Amino acid sequence: MGLFTKDIKTMNGLFEHQLQDIYYAEKQLVAALPKMAEKATEQQLKQGFLTHLNETKTHVQRLEEVFKMIGARAQAVDCPAIDGIIEEANETAGEVDDKAVLDAALINAAQAAEHYEIARYGSLIAWAKQLGRSDAASLLQKTLDEEKATDKKLTAIAEGKVNLRAAS
Amino acid sequence: MGLFTKDIKTMNGLFEHQLQDIYYAEKQLVAALPKMAEKATEQQLKQGFLTHLNETKTHVQRLEEVFKMIGARAQAVDCPAIDGIIEEANETAGEVDDKAVLDAALINAAQAAEHYEIARYGSLIAWAKQLGRSDAASLLQKTLDEEKATDKKLTAIAEGKVNLRAAS
Repeated sequence: MGLFTKDIKTMNGLFEHQLQDIYYAEKQLVAALPKMAEKATEQQLKQGFLTHLNETKTHVQRLEEVFKMIGARAQAVDCPAIDGIIEEANETAGEVDDKAVLDAALINAAQAAEHYEIARYGSLIAWAKQLGRSDAASLLQKTLDEEKATDKKLTAIAEGKVNLRAAS
Repeated sequence: MGLFTKDIKTMNGLFEHQLQDIYYAEKQLVAALPKMAEKATEQQLKQGFLTHLNETKTHVQRLEEVFKMIGARAQAVDCPAIDGIIEEANETAGEVDDKAVLDAALINAAQAAEHYEIARYGSLIAWAKQLGRSDAASLLQKTLDEEKATDKKLTAIAEGKVNLRAAS
């Protein structure tokens, strides 16, 4: 994308740009999740991160399928938003000096990433439908459903165990 | 916060740190929203950004009240996540060469910010309850409800008008 040219001329262009952005984000999360699993103390949380790592790898593949559907090359563009979310997660985690509190911070970080994805997939699905790409929309919907389910699981782990231990 | 010391020792510390983070984020949004309103073409969207600007100013004040409740100084810490979300919004908006498509991109950007806040306020409320601060929790809940309502309004504007115009 050029700095001095306006490269997005149509809704199809915006859709492809946003696909490239979330493609980058999913790949960054594939790299970040094993480190989060390593830092987590609570077993259910550790396992949750590893399960979501596998799902995230599938999300990358689904995006590659969507690129194919629209006849575009699977390509990532820098996504300062996910970089910021991950940078902040690392910074905060690095400052926490208590294992239970660290678990609470890790959940908070993961939920910020989930919500970022929920927002982006929400737009992508709406745009795909508007562009008459129901094939792409239904594939992206599967990922969105998994992101929402992960967010709920994280809330359940936080409220069921982690916050109680962290505050005690 | 020190780079080589672990400054967050308790759940109270994590709560205060996250308050400082979202305090920074809300202030950045107070600065960003008028620019988004200026760029928007669709009147309902323009007005929506201005209405949310007023709400966001109230969110800043509510956070100052919560700082008071916990006996802490209202202080902001850098929040790379919201900086990344805003940077990405500006980058993408700068590349769009069509007013209706730009409106769709602005809604997408705003929803990323809303979802960031929804994730953070969700954690803050859960932590406040766990820490026995129901006063803070109920004030933060008011803000969370407004962020969720704004996210829904943005979806309605996108699906009702903007996406249709952008894809045509």
